[in-house]
This record gives sequence, structure tokens and C-alpha cells, in this order.
Amino acid sequence: MLGARAQGGWRALRRCSSLPRAVRLRVREALGTREAVDAVRVQGWVRSVRSQKEVLFLHINDGSSLEHLQVVANPNLENRDLTFGSAVEVQGKLVKSPHRKQNMELQAETIRVVGPCDIWSFPLKMKERHPLEYVRQFPHLRCRNNTLGSLLRIRSEATAAIHSFFQDNGYVHIHTPIITSNDCEGAGELFQIEASSEVRESAEKTHFFNVPAFLTVSGQLHLEVMAGAFTHVFTFGPTFRAENSQSRRHLAEFYMVEAELSFTESLQDIMQVMEDLFKTVTSTVLSKCPHDVELFHKYVAPAQKDRLEQILKNKFVTISYSEAVEILKQASQTFTFKPEWGRDLQTEHEKYLVKHCGEVPVFVINYPYDLKPFYMRDNEDGPQHTVAAVDLLVPGIGELCGGSLREERLPFLESRLQRLGLTDTYQWYLDLRKFGSVPHGGFGMGFERYLQYILGVDNIKDVIPFPRFSHSCLL
Amino acid sequence: MLGARAQGGWRALRRCSSLPRAVRLRVREALGTREAVDAVRVQGWVRSVRSQKEVLFLHINDGSSLEHLQVVANPNLENRDLTFGSAVEVQGKLVKSPHRKQNMELQAETIRVVGPCDIWSFPLKMKERHPLEYVRQFPHLRCRNNTLGSLLRIRSEATAAIHSFFQDNGYVHIHTPIITSNDCEGAGELFQIEASSEVRESAEKTHFFNVPAFLTVSGQLHLEVMAGAFTHVFTFGPTFRAENSQSRRHLAEFYMVEAELSFTESLQDIMQVMEDLFKTVTSTVLSKCPHDVELFHKYVAPAQKDRLEQILKNKFVTISYSEAVEILKQASQTFTFKPEWGRDLQTEHEKYLVKHCGEVPVFVINYPYDLKPFYMRDNEDGPQHTVAAVDLLVPGIGELCGGSLREERLPFLESRLQRLGLTDTYQWYLDLRKFGSVPHGGFGMGFERYLQYILGVDNIKDVIPFPRFSHSCLL
Repeated sequence: MLGARAQGGWRALRRCSSLPRAVRLRVREALGTREAVDAVRVQGWVRSVRSQKEVLFLHINDGSSLEHLQVVANPNLENRDLTFGSAVEVQGKLVKSPHRKQNMELQAETIRVVGPCDIWSFPLKMKERHPLEYVRQFPHLRCRNNTLGSLLRIRSEATAAIHSFFQDNGYVHIHTPIITSNDCEGAGELFQIEASSEVRESAEKTHFFNVPAFLTVSGQLHLEVMAGAFTHVFTFGPTFRAENSQSRRHLAEFYMVEAELSFTESLQDIMQVMEDLFKTVTSTVLSKCPHDVELFHKYVAPAQKDRLEQILKNKFVTISYSEAVEILKQASQTFTFKPEWGRDLQTEHEKYLVKHCGEVPVFVINYPYDLKPFYMRDNEDGPQHTVAAVDLLVPGIGELCGGSLREERLPFLESRLQRLGLTDTYQWYLDLRKFGSVPHGGFGMGFERYLQYILGVDNIKDVIPFPRFSHSCLL
Repeated sequence: MLGARAQGGWRALRRCSSLPRAVRLRVREALGTREAVDAVRVQGWVRSVRSQKEVLFLHINDGSSLEHLQVVANPNLENRDLTFGSAVEVQGKLVKSPHRKQNMELQAETIRVVGPCDIWSFPLKMKERHPLEYVRQFPHLRCRNNTLGSLLRIRSEATAAIHSFFQDNGYVHIHTPIITSNDCEGAGELFQIEASSEVRESAEKTHFFNVPAFLTVSGQLHLEVMAGAFTHVFTFGPTFRAENSQSRRHLAEFYMVEAELSFTESLQDIMQVMEDLFKTVTSTVLSKCPHDVELFHKYVAPAQKDRLEQILKNKFVTISYSEAVEILKQASQTFTFKPEWGRDLQTEHEKYLVKHCGEVPVFVINYPYDLKPFYMRDNEDGPQHTVAAVDLLVPGIGELCGGSLREERLPFLESRLQRLGLTDTYQWYLDLRKFGSVPHGGFGMGFERYLQYILGVDNIKDVIPFPRFSHSCLL
């Protein structure tokens, strides 16, 4: 039924399949095999070719693991197209390797080049440890580099671990919307969207959605809707900031894990989930991707491994914003921004606090009322008036998570929205407090920052498959 | 450390916590308990109040299950605020229920209204089965309706099952980008994005990303990048169409599951994954959410259950596009669009084909070359020239999945792109064929259509938490 196929390589593959069929194994499976297997077929890309008089060595990788499968062949199987970067299919015997560094190796009977690689124009070179800055120039090819390969496997495992963490704890996953008509938070940094035909004509006249529409900066308000029906909800999706920054810390498109809990009793409930999430997901990643993580802890951020293990063993530190300001005021260090109660903590302050607490994750709680958005719960304290907000600061990154209890009391929320002139816009949000309102709260964790932190990766562009930032949207 | 709290309800909760602590159980846990428990605390929303002379009955739901927990109380525990929709905390004894329909019930000792509900303005009413069209008007409250509650739990389980399916089969999860500079596919239906400050000033002058940027219509091309390093990759995220349609079949923002496989041998490899994905995820959902699915199969789409079970047992049907056209030509039915080789299959044709094959999922393969996009693999047949494309048609929905082998042969792709004048734009895509190209292919499945199909939901707006479509972007 399928059309005829041309080109040598492909035909050869079809011919193979009429022979007694060899077991098709992925590299990871081949490496994990305990006993010799007679007829094996492995497909992948050549990571190294070493031709000796008596023997030809190949390393084959198919993305299933960092480790390559060593292929041992008769030198007469070598051919012009069998180069670094080429795609091959190797058939042969899988046998115990005499070498200490690997478990199994493949004794090739046939080697077929499925797709050659022009090594002169291919920007990756054999056995070179290319710097991350270098491979960043080739977004369509950098996944073939060891470091990015490991990163993407880790990212995939961490994604699965986050879903499992919430599912195991009875959370309902919600796809909060990407396009939203809420534009009130941080309006300057929003992306606005229109049907492209409308952009071409004059703007403003009609909107596709009738109203101006934006890319989401957070799923929180939509999760709060859901927290009125499900006591535990989470989302894990893309969020956007049109921040004009090319720094190593910012992306225009990044991923956030957000959770919302109903019937909370204190901010501690939220912090506990943040800490559990971090520790559970990190432990899972460490145990599922030991080699991939090791690459980072060996070449990218030495000493990160021990630090991480210490952190997983100990409880995170908690200080209040007011305590934080006192610590900063008593610091011998001089800051560019003078620490003062009522002002935002700057990066230099966060760094100092984390160092002061022993280079471990630090929860800072109860921020000044006037610094925080309308939805955060009034602590009704004074004279230093605070809300039940929390930031989780981590070494080298700064803010990893932010959360709060939400104002569930109708009169408090009404008067705050009225002062901001937002009562009409947020009528639906007020409704949530009219119909069975409950104390609730939640948090968001920046997924790229999380990966940067556990792996010790300096630049956020290196932990996402296709980074988008101001002046750059490649592919 | 946390600020003092006001308001009666919350204070009462804090007082409770100084008493010997009752075990906090979710409704689902309470219902699943096998033996009586003396001190239990359950929190949730009241779904019914029935006051008799001797006894007060409540039904409590917290979103953990469709089934409510029955609370039995002394009528003197009743109060003005204890209404349908109010949020409550009940403490008491969990005991075996004398009623056949439920396993356990809660004998209340205390009932505290955490948040009252103004039942006069609350659009949901006690014990009413509101039509889906009615609750659609209240996107911030409809999740409190039984049907939407079940839908969202099923959607969450299906999401988890999709991730598990791919993870269990060794796929690497990739977050393909939402913002993209590719604009060549179906340009008329794209959303374009700009930083909102730039929209307000004159457009066209500068772009945030230097180039025009759009919301993705598919992650395929980016997955193909990854398929050059990992033999099995998938993504599951939002995709967008600026289609000016308010039909029951279209959304501006919807979710797609997409997978890409390297070293494919035929289109059959792709179809096998599509079929396995469908069957595995559906079986998981049916076994994990039996009551939620039953609600749909009882009230929304009777007879869907038996049909689904039949489908899971049998192999999907496969016909070629050419066979499909012959079937349509021989049909006794008259079509608005006359079936002819080389023309697109219309909805009426798809319906007929599915019916002709016995109201089961039908793969239609090998479509005319001229109907399909540049990246599909040339079958090199003739005179009726086709590409290795596949659509999966299902009853009531039409196209559920679409996929193809991709053109991995550099000369074929080059000449096709040249004819389209797209060589420069897709230089990076051609690169993938220069450096270790492999036969590969993949597919996408519309997640909302999948949910519509298995549950028998007529309108796509009812299977997504916050539907976005032309003229509507609520919340």
C-alpha cells in the first residue's frame, strides 16, 4: 500500500528486513543488556570513528543515553561516508566488552550509512568539548552535542517528575489559558496578540477576540477559579514577559510550575509544598539521570553535587522580610541599594541573604503590603503592614519560587480593588469570594531557573530547547 | 511569624487545631476508607442540604471525586449560612453507611461554614442538571458543576496518561516553542505577537524579536530538529489558529500531542504509535476515572461506552486515499462536494467513510502530492502522485490525528522548497538533511478532539477549561 521507495540506503534497509530479523535495540538497551545477543540491530549517529590497522572502532549514540555504544568492526567495513555525524545502522553480535569502562560492545557484521554528514560544514567537531556559547549559535543542531543532549534528557525527566509529584499528591492538572484578556499585572511587559491579517490592516479597529488579548504571565488567577472546585490544582506551561533584556537570567518565553491549594491554614502549607516539590523532583532526577547530571557536576559546575545532597537532607531556612532587612542593615558589606524596610530586595541583597544563611535555599516571608499585588492576603499587622507572601531564594539564581496566601475575604479584596479602580475588571474574581470562598494560596516555580540551579548552568538560554528573548527568535 | 488573622471562620479553624487533631481526609479518601474512624475532618463545598425533623443530611464535595460524602447531623447544627455552594469544614466520626449507594458516611459533631454562598445570585442551583450551554456562560464557576468537574478530572488523568505512555516507551519530552518566526504554513490563520508597548506605538517599525513572530500552529518542525539527536521525541502543548469560526469544532487555542520517530521503515510505524497511544491512554482513563466517564456515557452520550470497548478490542481500519475516493464514488449518497481524485476530503466524505467502515477509527493513507505540505515524503508513484501522509478519522469528530513520513532526502526537499521559493527560509531545515539525515516521521493528535470522541461531547468548548475562540476570550 505504501509507495515505492528510492535511494540506496533506504532500499538496503528494506532488504535487510527480509533476512532473519535482528533484534532492534536502542543504545541504552544494548548497554544495559547482561548477556551476549547474537543478532542485534542498532541505529544512531556516529560520535567517533577510530580506524586502526586491524580494527575499526565506532561510537554510536541515539539519544537514549549519554553513553555511546562501542562498535568493533573489521576495517574493510569502513567507507568514505562513515564519518562523525553520519547516521548509521549496524548489525552484529552484542558481546561483553573486555574494557572496564563499558559493559557491552557490538561486533559489527554490517554497517550501513543511512545518512552521510558533510563534516566540513557541520559545525560540531569530533571529540571537541564545544562551549555552550558556541553551540547556542546553532539551535537546530546543538541537541547533537553531549551537554545539550544530557540537558534535554534531564529536562524531560524533570517534567515527568513534576507531573508525577502532583498526581501522586491528588492534584488535578489544569491547562490554564495562554491567551488571556487580563492585562492588569505588569502591563509594560506583556505581549499582545492579533490575527496576523488584522495586524497587516490598521490595528485597533477590530480585535480577533473583540477585546485586547495578551500572552499569559501566570496561570494563578485561573488556578484560583479551579481552587473553588478542586482543593488541589496545578499547571505546568509556558509563560511570557516582553522584557527588553538579553541577560543570562531572562527569557521572553519560559515555563512555570504553578499550584494552588484550598483550605490552607497558614503560609507554611504553601512553603511545605514548595520544599517537597523541589526535593522530590530533584531526588528523582538524580536517581534517573545519574550520568547526565554527573556531566554537569563534573564539567559545568564542580562541587554542585555535594551542595545539592546537603540541601536535600536539610530543612530549608525561613526568615521574615523584616528579619532580612535587619540582617542586611547589620551587614559589613556596602550595598548599591541601601536596605530599608518597605523597599524591594535587590539581587545584591538576595545574594547576601543566601550567603548569610549558608548558601542554602531561604524562604523570605511576609513582605510589605505596599510592595505586593492586590490578591495577596493582608496580615493585618502593623505598624509595618505586611501580606502573607513568600519568595524562595537559592544560591546563584535568586528567586526560584514566589507564592502567597490569597485574599479570600470579600470586604478586604473589594476595598483594595476599589482603590486600584479595578472593581469592574475583576468582578469575576470577586465572585469567587461570594460563592463558598475558602482560605487558599499557591506558588509558582520557574522551571528553567530550577534546572539552572540543580545543574549549575549559568545562562538560562542553555536549559531550554529553543530560547526566545529580545531581538532573537531563531527557527 | 505569620500575621494575626481575623474573621470568625478562620479563627474557629485555628481554635480547632489546638484540640486533639482530627485526621484530615479528602472526600475520595473518606469514601474509600474500609473501617470506622473516630475523629475525622473533611472540608469541601455543600452540594445538597436536606433538613428533616430528626436529622440533617448534607452532601460534601471537594473535587477529589464525582461522588459526594454524605454527612449526617443533628438538625441543631443547621444554620443560615449552611446552604448549597457554601464551603464547610465538618468534624465527626466516619462510619459505615447503612445505605446501599455509599460505603461510608460522616456523623458530624461540628459543622463550620468557612465561606457562605449567596444562593440567590449563584448561577448554579441545587440538584439541577444544568445544560452545558448554560454553564458555559460562567467560565469562573462552571468547574463547580458535576459534568465539568468530571471532565476536568478526566482531562487531568488523560494528560498524565499521555506523558506516561511516551515516557514508558523511551520518548524524550521536548518543550517546542510557542513563539516562532516560521510563518509559512497557513499564513492566513496565524496569530502575530508584539510587545504591547510596540502595539500602542506605530506597528511595523521595530519588532520585539527583530522579525515578525507568531504563535505556533505545530511543534513538528522543531521536533524534527530533535529527531536528529533522539530517535523518539514528543511534545504536548498549546497550539493556535486564528480561524474566524465559532463552530462546535474549532478553538483559537487548543492542545496537541505530537511525536516524531527516527529510523522509520514505513508509514505503518507512525500509525502503530497513533493506535497504541489512543488505546493505552483510553484504557488508562477508563480504569482510573470509571465514575467520571460513566457520567458522560450515561447522560451525555449513551451507547458510547460499548462502542469504545469494541474499538479498543479491534485493530483500526486502514484504507488508501485512492480507495477512499472509489468508495465515495460508488456511494448511493449524493454529496455536496463531488468526490474526485486530487481533491480534499470534506467533512461529509469523512463521515461517510467512517460509517462505511463500521463507525470505527479509520486510517486514510497516501494523499495526493499536490494537496499536502512540502515536508511530506514523496511516494514517487504515479500517475496518481502521492505522499506518505496519514489521517486518522473517527466517528462524530472527523480528523483526530494527522501524520506523515517526512522528506528526509536532500535533493527531493531542495527542489520542492525551491519551487515554493522557500529555500532561504528553510535553510536550517535543509541542514537537518545534510548532517546525518534519517528516514523519520510523526503525527499530531488534537487533545480536545480526543476528549470529545471518547466522552461523546458535542462541543469542543466543553472539554477545555477556558475556551478561546473568535470574539471570545473570557477571563
